[in-house]
Amino acid sequence: MYENCLVVQSGGPTAVINNSVVGLVDEMLYSGFKGKIYGSIGGIHGLMNEKFIDLSKLSTEDRHRLRWTPGAALGTCRHKLILSEIEKIILILKKRHIRYFFYIGGNGSMQVAKMVNDVAEQMNYHLTVIGIPKSIDNDLVETDHSPGYGSAAKFLATSVLDMKMDVASYPSSNRVTIIETMGRHTGWLAAACSLATCDDESQTLIYIPEAPFYLENCLEKIQNAYRNKRNTFLIVAEGMKNEYGQYINENQIEYDLLDRPKLGGVADYLKNTIENSTGIQTRSIVTSIWQRSSIILASKTDVDEAYEISKEAWKHAVKGYSGVMIGMDREKNVENDYKIVYRPKPLKDVANKEKYVPVEWYDLSENTMTKEFINYAESLIQGEMIIPMKNGLPIYKQVI
Amino acid sequence: MYENCLVVQSGGPTAVINNSVVGLVDEMLYSGFKGKIYGSIGGIHGLMNEKFIDLSKLSTEDRHRLRWTPGAALGTCRHKLILSEIEKIILILKKRHIRYFFYIGGNGSMQVAKMVNDVAEQMNYHLTVIGIPKSIDNDLVETDHSPGYGSAAKFLATSVLDMKMDVASYPSSNRVTIIETMGRHTGWLAAACSLATCDDESQTLIYIPEAPFYLENCLEKIQNAYRNKRNTFLIVAEGMKNEYGQYINENQIEYDLLDRPKLGGVADYLKNTIENSTGIQTRSIVTSIWQRSSIILASKTDVDEAYEISKEAWKHAVKGYSGVMIGMDREKNVENDYKIVYRPKPLKDVANKEKYVPVEWYDLSENTMTKEFINYAESLIQGEMIIPMKNGLPIYKQVI
Repeated sequence: MYENCLVVQSGGPTAVINNSVVGLVDEMLYSGFKGKIYGSIGGIHGLMNEKFIDLSKLSTEDRHRLRWTPGAALGTCRHKLILSEIEKIILILKKRHIRYFFYIGGNGSMQVAKMVNDVAEQMNYHLTVIGIPKSIDNDLVETDHSPGYGSAAKFLATSVLDMKMDVASYPSSNRVTIIETMGRHTGWLAAACSLATCDDESQTLIYIPEAPFYLENCLEKIQNAYRNKRNTFLIVAEGMKNEYGQYINENQIEYDLLDRPKLGGVADYLKNTIENSTGIQTRSIVTSIWQRSSIILASKTDVDEAYEISKEAWKHAVKGYSGVMIGMDREKNVENDYKIVYRPKPLKDVANKEKYVPVEWYDLSENTMTKEFINYAESLIQGEMIIPMKNGLPIYKQVI
Repeated sequence: MYENCLVVQSGGPTAVINNSVVGLVDEMLYSGFKGKIYGSIGGIHGLMNEKFIDLSKLSTEDRHRLRWTPGAALGTCRHKLILSEIEKIILILKKRHIRYFFYIGGNGSMQVAKMVNDVAEQMNYHLTVIGIPKSIDNDLVETDHSPGYGSAAKFLATSVLDMKMDVASYPSSNRVTIIETMGRHTGWLAAACSLATCDDESQTLIYIPEAPFYLENCLEKIQNAYRNKRNTFLIVAEGMKNEYGQYINENQIEYDLLDRPKLGGVADYLKNTIENSTGIQTRSIVTSIWQRSSIILASKTDVDEAYEISKEAWKHAVKGYSGVMIGMDREKNVENDYKIVYRPKPLKDVANKEKYVPVEWYDLSENTMTKEFINYAESLIQGEMIIPMKNGLPIYKQVI
């Protein structure tokens, strides 16, 4: 009887998360793996209910098509695991003779992967557990960046650039455009909008959760720009906070099933505040799930890395690693080119931690990102995808 | 002294409106036009304040780059012209020896073009006036469709498809996603979302201003789908109305400077209504200026037509036409291929009229578009642009 493998997609979808599934399957098949490569349908729910798809049966063409299909093709879920459920999971893995467990997700998911690794050990079940990072929020530690972030960053920067062209079309009408990005605790996505520079005369202010938001200062900057006939763009992370560490729209916030604040109202709140305080016409635009669902604007660098990191996951599994996440270290060669080296990092160093935008990468007086951030982020949005189209629309592959 | 020409961009920007400027300049230069080709900076404002740019001086490369630059590169404005201003305009044209007047815009703009034509005649100033249609709303009469619509339609259909992939990533979580498109009086843009079909099991309901919205019926459909573990997508035109002809969120509507209702709150209103009535989690996404600012998802067909229609405008001007808009007639050849013939249409037949989605193209019981609409719209989103990129982002050209 062969040993089998299971791969789970966890957390929010990204434009490139399917590349991590395909990279793993491709590498396993290439290396002659003879067991089944199960995919859990609907994340950890699928695992608990034993709803699996046999990925080794996907044709080369289908795997290829999955590489330009956004969203989590195997399905994911929102679920907070408890210990007894993990024990149940180990029994399921045992029954199915699954010896390799790959978990694609963010920092919460890495905690789950760690628990699965620990509980398997306690139950004396030999299991290889490897975490594969994925996050549009880019908030995983022990890795230079996370697959998914580069594409969301490129999408946002391009969209801001496009909207700047639109707003610049009205030279005699000065107003405020607020663009709200995801980012509960970190400002990586909002910061990425600083990549969108052009010769228009607008003022762009970026607000991230890592730095306090001073309303009066913001209003003053908006009014100054307005007097000088300049438009203002406000880029706001949904989790931005005031100088007292409170969400800007604290009173309006509701909480979800996992007791996390349901953010996402900051742009509308600011729009009303700005219009009421200054009388300047303001538009609020919420990027919502858009910023993670578009593959057309995916970064080739990101796509390639999301694929490669899973090949590395299998290579490390074969070498005997377990309880690790594959991290990406950025190493500069003599030409100072961008270069990534994949290295295993203990899950315990990653689980439930968060990587914040370094304070020195944010200019608090100008509310802009510094050159250091630009240098960091620019490498991640390089290269374009050519998405096969049919009848004017992309052709995606669904497998579940 | 040579005769000169003036081109004005009017109304809201589109992804392809600059192609109409470039097509005109290219054709005029090609045909040996020796006068100045003025562009008005900031629409009719620029004309009244004599702020012009000499487009004949743009290099071939700059003109080429403008073809993939979204937004109205010459600038536009919101302004309701009165008769005395038009008389002043004619005097400015006379002073500058401008004999050709090209106005790129929607149905309100065609009314302005008509007035300019009429007043010039009354003032015995020989002026050639040609309207060039442009509208993401697709609401101009006397033309099969308007440049700008195809690209907005392709953007929306692709975005809906992308978001369907995202929502399908959560197989065990059924919810409602509301996507709000532009469209004050017509549902062409919302209807375009029906092009986004895939194999997911979601229910897609489309609501356009041309057909009454029955809240109870909508809620019932949502609840039925929910019971059957299906997601629902609601595509709503901002100007959708109930069975009494009122805006759904009538009480919340404010009015702008031109006394037009400031729409755009329908999705949020419906989100609250649905959540309160059914308890089903609902997300509202407003496509805002995004749907008209993205060139990455522009339709090649649309880009080519926006360019071609202005070449036709010059050809017709030379032939002596005036007081006309260039319309596009769709003619089927024997192979039943899509084919457009450009023909002049009297401005008086176009000005201030609106083209609605034909009632027979909408299935009121299923809230979907019929095959007739799909056949109509599919031709308009064909073909993709390859946008030159630098450092991960598109390189746009600004001229003002």
